[in-house]
Amino acid sequence: MIESRQARHLSIEIIGVISSCFSEKFATPRQSGLAPSACARLKLIEPFNRVEMVRGLETFSHIWLHFIFHQVVADGWKTTVRPPRLGGSERKGVWATRSPHRPNFIGLSVVKLEDIKVSDGVELILSGGDLLDGTPVIDIKPYLPDSDSLPDANAGWSEKMFATLDVQFCSEAIRFCRRYERQTGAPLLSLISEVLCADPRPASQRDNRKEFAMLLWDVNVRWRMEADVCVVLSCEQQ
Amino acid sequence: MIESRQARHLSIEIIGVISSCFSEKFATPRQSGLAPSACARLKLIEPFNRVEMVRGLETFSHIWLHFIFHQVVADGWKTTVRPPRLGGSERKGVWATRSPHRPNFIGLSVVKLEDIKVSDGVELILSGGDLLDGTPVIDIKPYLPDSDSLPDANAGWSEKMFATLDVQFCSEAIRFCRRYERQTGAPLLSLISEVLCADPRPASQRDNRKEFAMLLWDVNVRWRMEADVCVVLSCEQQ
Repeated sequence: MIESRQARHLSIEIIGVISSCFSEKFATPRQSGLAPSACARLKLIEPFNRVEMVRGLETFSHIWLHFIFHQVVADGWKTTVRPPRLGGSERKGVWATRSPHRPNFIGLSVVKLEDIKVSDGVELILSGGDLLDGTPVIDIKPYLPDSDSLPDANAGWSEKMFATLDVQFCSEAIRFCRRYERQTGAPLLSLISEVLCADPRPASQRDNRKEFAMLLWDVNVRWRMEADVCVVLSCEQQ
Repeated sequence: MIESRQARHLSIEIIGVISSCFSEKFATPRQSGLAPSACARLKLIEPFNRVEMVRGLETFSHIWLHFIFHQVVADGWKTTVRPPRLGGSERKGVWATRSPHRPNFIGLSVVKLEDIKVSDGVELILSGGDLLDGTPVIDIKPYLPDSDSLPDANAGWSEKMFATLDVQFCSEAIRFCRRYERQTGAPLLSLISEVLCADPRPASQRDNRKEFAMLLWDVNVRWRMEADVCVVLSCEQQ
């Protein structure tokens, strides 16, 4: 009846690549909007980076990015997953989740469009994303609130919100962040707070006093739970 | 640095195909939500149709579909397009629009999830969509209002809303619709009203009294503008 019923496979081309503060999968936010201080740049690739292709995009505050969860492709997809929001104890069908372990490995995030740089190709300056450094992007769309915003949609099992943590910094860690912010302009202190507040620990490791580490830009951040407070122990440039 | 910087092409697999009331491209709504009476079914394809893959999906009211604008693939993509909302007179960069004429031809629509049928594979019963019959689908995601709904996002140039038309029916057309609705259960009368209200005429053909026709399911609907009113002249089963 239609072509696509015969041809099951399609070839998709990468249109751009993300540079992001999230240098590794661990601790990358699980949804966009959770870390407003998150910074990213999307560098468009030829022939998708012609200046006329972004004409009018600057009038929108937010855009959708379709991307590939490139770091899980090698692992393959799953029929069911254990969403972190549910504490890792319950299985949901992969189509009922935003898990990266999905057929075609396609991700969808709305991000804030801060600026568009058009010298030497086109680069979009973004914030509030949940995208890993190096993420390949396959489409960009303006966010249209009249069709995309459904505040009364039923959030289903995801009604159960992520737990939020109180975050405290050792004084040496605060000094490091201030210095780093002066040198680079990157909002490190608020980014660490936002990321840790959303509790990035795997569900299976929430009960012990283990030390964790994450990489934001080139800064290795170590933290540990002390009672119910998340304490940032140190920040070190790599 | 990352694999994807070398490999520019990815292979995507179709996970399902849409059956929809919109039998042809002309008059298919330009965004989801414009025609709440629009009906569609998404039949999932093996191996993506296992019952456990939709476990928990029934708790959500709305879902995202990522799909391919299959009827424009042969035409290729464009760097700029003339959005119908702007009367067809102004060009915008394709990344600043939701036009189908985009690199990779990926569409994104939020639709209402009415039901899930799990006998003989999995079929999702949907409403409010803007999807053409035969559309290949490449991903399904639950709509998460806490990250996806941004009512205060700036709608940019799309602030300019679609014009809406008054729609009237000839009495014979009304009788046809009532009979069709009794026989099939399909909400033909309200669907015609919703589709014509959004003025599906191409911008270049809005000034004359030309007669138009569209196919909804197997019904050929003819209409014409009379003064400022859109008049449904006839409905005929094909």
